[in-house]
Amino acid sequence: MTGHNIVPQSFATLETAPTQYIEGRRSRFAYRRLGPSIGTPLILLQHFSGNIDAWDPAVVNALAADRPVIAFDNAGVGRSTGQTPDNVAAMARDAVDFINLLGFPEVDLLGFSLGGRVAQQIAAEHGGLVRKLILVGTSPKGGEEHLLAVLREAFAQSDAPDPRLPLFFTQSSASQSAGRAFLERIKLRKEDRDTENGSAVTDPQAKALITWCATPDHEQAVLRAIHQPTLVVSGSHDTMLPAINAYAMFKGLSNAQLVLYPDSGHGALFQHHETFVSHVRTFLDAKPAADESRTPADNARRIYS
Amino acid sequence: MTGHNIVPQSFATLETAPTQYIEGRRSRFAYRRLGPSIGTPLILLQHFSGNIDAWDPAVVNALAADRPVIAFDNAGVGRSTGQTPDNVAAMARDAVDFINLLGFPEVDLLGFSLGGRVAQQIAAEHGGLVRKLILVGTSPKGGEEHLLAVLREAFAQSDAPDPRLPLFFTQSSASQSAGRAFLERIKLRKEDRDTENGSAVTDPQAKALITWCATPDHEQAVLRAIHQPTLVVSGSHDTMLPAINAYAMFKGLSNAQLVLYPDSGHGALFQHHETFVSHVRTFLDAKPAADESRTPADNARRIYS
Repeated sequence: MTGHNIVPQSFATLETAPTQYIEGRRSRFAYRRLGPSIGTPLILLQHFSGNIDAWDPAVVNALAADRPVIAFDNAGVGRSTGQTPDNVAAMARDAVDFINLLGFPEVDLLGFSLGGRVAQQIAAEHGGLVRKLILVGTSPKGGEEHLLAVLREAFAQSDAPDPRLPLFFTQSSASQSAGRAFLERIKLRKEDRDTENGSAVTDPQAKALITWCATPDHEQAVLRAIHQPTLVVSGSHDTMLPAINAYAMFKGLSNAQLVLYPDSGHGALFQHHETFVSHVRTFLDAKPAADESRTPADNARRIYS
Repeated sequence: MTGHNIVPQSFATLETAPTQYIEGRRSRFAYRRLGPSIGTPLILLQHFSGNIDAWDPAVVNALAADRPVIAFDNAGVGRSTGQTPDNVAAMARDAVDFINLLGFPEVDLLGFSLGGRVAQQIAAEHGGLVRKLILVGTSPKGGEEHLLAVLREAFAQSDAPDPRLPLFFTQSSASQSAGRAFLERIKLRKEDRDTENGSAVTDPQAKALITWCATPDHEQAVLRAIHQPTLVVSGSHDTMLPAINAYAMFKGLSNAQLVLYPDSGHGALFQHHETFVSHVRTFLDAKPAADESRTPADNARRIYS
C-alpha cells in the first residue's frame, strides 16, 4: 500500500535526482532517471503545460521503488530544446526519439492527459517498442470536445492559488485537501527545478489537444491498433474529461483494464496516489494469462506452486 | 501479486478447513473460517445456486493470507438448514443473523452476483455493521432485466461440461482455459464437500433475482443509502450483466471505485484472480483520505513519514 516507504535511501528521488540531458537530432532532452537500472523502464508522458517538476513525487518515487522510471521534457518543453510541435503525432515521434536515444528496446508508458494521447499514438505506431500502456485522464481521438472551454474557465479563475486546484481536484473538502497536499509535494525540490512553460509551449500544445479531440476517428483506428495490455484510469468527476471517456476507451481497446476512483477529478492519480501506485504495480507486474497449452491440472499446480 | 504464495502453511485453506456449524433461530448455518483470528472479517456472499465449494480457492486462500475470511451457506443453501427465501431482503436478514451469531461487530462484505445484491441490501440497511463493501458481477436494484434469459440459455447448453464455462467466461481460448483451471481448482477439496443445491434453493433464488432486477428503484434508494467505501468489479463481456451495470453502480454510489477486467465474463474474479486479490487487498487496506484538519505541510510530512 505504501510503496514509497520501501524506496531504498540510496535511490535518488524526483526531488533529489540530477537533471540529465541527452542530445538528439531535433532536440536536446532534459530528463531525470530514478529507480533501479534493471527492468523495463516506465516512461512518463506529461500533461498540457507541465514540466518534469509537475509530476507528483509521491507517485513517481513509489513507482521507482521497483523499476526504472524516467520523467522527461518532450521537445521544446521545460529545459528541452527544439520546437514544441502542434500535433500529437509529432510529439509521439519526439518521444520515440528520446526513448531511442536512451537505448531502450522496450518500455512501459504512463501517459497523463495530453501525455495519454501521445502514449496512444506511440503504442499504435510503434507496437514493438511498448510492452504495457497506462492511460490516465485522457481520451480517445475525436472523443471529447468541451475540454478547452473548461480549461479556459479554470485558468480564468484568478482567485484560485493554482489552476490545478479547480482543474485536477473536485470541490469536496477531501479532494481540495488532497490537492493542497499535492501542490506542497511538487514544491519539495528546491534546487535545479525545471523551467516553467510559456506560450511557446502551451500554444502549440493547445492546438495539438484541440486537433486530437476534434478529429473524428469513427473507425477507432488508433485504439484498434493498440494491442498492448492497457490500464485506463480516470477520476469520477473529471470536469475536463468525464469518466465515460475512460469507459469508452476501455470498450474500444482489445486488452484493457479500467480503474475509476471516487470523488476525484483530472488529478485522480495524485489524489489517490497510494492506491494508484498499487494498481500500476499490480498491472505492470501481472504475468500474461495462463498458457493454454497447459492442461487445467498443470495450471492448477502452477497456481499453487 | 501472488498472495497465495505467502499463505502460512499453518492456516487452513478452503480445501482443508473443517466445515463448522452455528445454530440460529431460523437456520443452522454451515461455514468455513480461514485466515488469522485478528482483523476485520471478510464475509463472502455467494452467487445464485452456489455453495461454499463454488468459491475459487485461489481467491479465498489468497485473501485469507492477511485477514479472517468466512465462506458460508445462507439459510437453506448447501448444508445450512432452514428455508431459502424468495427475496433479497430476507436473504440479507439471514446473512446478518449469521454475522451476529459469530459475534462480529463490524465486517467487510464481498458479494458476487446474487450475493452482490444481498451485500447492497445489508450495507444499505445495516450501515454500522459494514466497514467496506465489494460488489462483483452484480447490478443495482431494477437495473437489469435480460439476465434470466441468458441464464436459461446457458443451462440449456447440455454439451457444455459445466454451465459455468459459458456463463462465467468468454468464448476466447484464454478465458475458456482460465475457466477450465477454475473448475479444476474448485474440485480440489475431496472430503467433506458441500451439498449441491436443488430446486428448493434455486427456485426461490431465481424469484429473488427476478424481483430484484424487475423492481424499479428510480430514486436509487438502495445505492444512495450506501455510504461505505465500495469496490465495484465486473468483467468486460459479462453476458448476463453487461459492464455498463457496474459503471452505473459506480456513478450511483457516493464513494465507489470501479475496476473492469479485459476479455472476461461473469467470473472475472476467478479468471483474473491474482489481479483481483491484489485489488481487493489494496482497497481493504487503504486508509481513509488525508485528514482535512491537517495542514498541507502536515499531510506532505505524513506522506513521507
